[in-house]
Amino acid sequence: MINKVYVALIHYPILKKDGSIVSTAVTNFDIHDISRTCRTYNVKNYFLVSNLPAQRKIVERVVEYWTKGFGSDYNPNRKDALDIFRIESYLEDVIEKIEKIEGIKPKIVFTSAKPRNNVVTFSELSQVIRRAEDPILILFGTGWGMPEEIREICDYDLEPIRAKSDFNHLSVRAAVAITLDRLIGEEICYNS
Amino acid sequence: MINKVYVALIHYPILKKDGSIVSTAVTNFDIHDISRTCRTYNVKNYFLVSNLPAQRKIVERVVEYWTKGFGSDYNPNRKDALDIFRIESYLEDVIEKIEKIEGIKPKIVFTSAKPRNNVVTFSELSQVIRRAEDPILILFGTGWGMPEEIREICDYDLEPIRAKSDFNHLSVRAAVAITLDRLIGEEICYNS
Repeated sequence: MINKVYVALIHYPILKKDGSIVSTAVTNFDIHDISRTCRTYNVKNYFLVSNLPAQRKIVERVVEYWTKGFGSDYNPNRKDALDIFRIESYLEDVIEKIEKIEGIKPKIVFTSAKPRNNVVTFSELSQVIRRAEDPILILFGTGWGMPEEIREICDYDLEPIRAKSDFNHLSVRAAVAITLDRLIGEEICYNS
Repeated sequence: MINKVYVALIHYPILKKDGSIVSTAVTNFDIHDISRTCRTYNVKNYFLVSNLPAQRKIVERVVEYWTKGFGSDYNPNRKDALDIFRIESYLEDVIEKIEKIEGIKPKIVFTSAKPRNNVVTFSELSQVIRRAEDPILILFGTGWGMPEEIREICDYDLEPIRAKSDFNHLSVRAAVAITLDRLIGEEICYNS
């Protein structure tokens, strides 16, 4: 459902350049740029996933600055945007949280810039979001992308953005923005 | 022309929260996130505009890290993306550079999240980019947006993204990504 869209940014498990599994470092922009994008497109919650307690602590400090510290007075828009932000240790926790809110498990969407077979197109997924009753959770990777073990548990595998371009290395911040705009566009929906 | 699209990110002159004119601080992500987006959409050059020599020096150091330093080996994609990146002191310098490359002044596009009258729609501007012969320069603001004095010299004033949403405070990184995707989409063009 268009008013039950959730986004998660995965920092673990993530592929490293050499194919091994790592935890990636969180950047400030992963927190506030993506929160602002999600809030603008009426995403219900934006989850940042990191298994490292020290990373989660940094995130909590940044969020506190913008929601309770100097930043909350100076730039109250950012406070509004961070209202939908959540931090979790594992993807399983995110799925559980959504199930608790909605009473049903979300349909999960895998995204990647790499060419793959059996992908759903943006226009097909846009229809699914409008017609299906289920909540939708869209996953985005960091580093060199999400591993196969995550793709296997997903219900949909979304086509890449500009796969035919001679260069399609968008930042994840840009990929989230373009994906939500292609799926939701100018449609206004309020979270139920 | 679709293969003569240029982007500029303005750090001066910019509106401060109180309406006065300031120079805003550059962030790393203004450099590499937007370069990657522009490169993905075959933008010919992405100009960052700052009138402060100390800021331009920081930008040059960041660019050097990714094009000649450790970053160029570790992440060569970023080096490719930064090939189209340029830094200039003033908007006038950007216009002059484009005129030198193209032999003709660019048509200039103003963007803002604020509601305004007499705007061009994304679909209209998309047609202009495909049909007109002139190069196109799309301007994006930082801080609290670009002042009226910049809007007055622009040929087109582009409609805001999600103006009807109860929140439309996208980061400029997200706004650039969505704007280029709406105007160019999956169309492949190579720079002439």
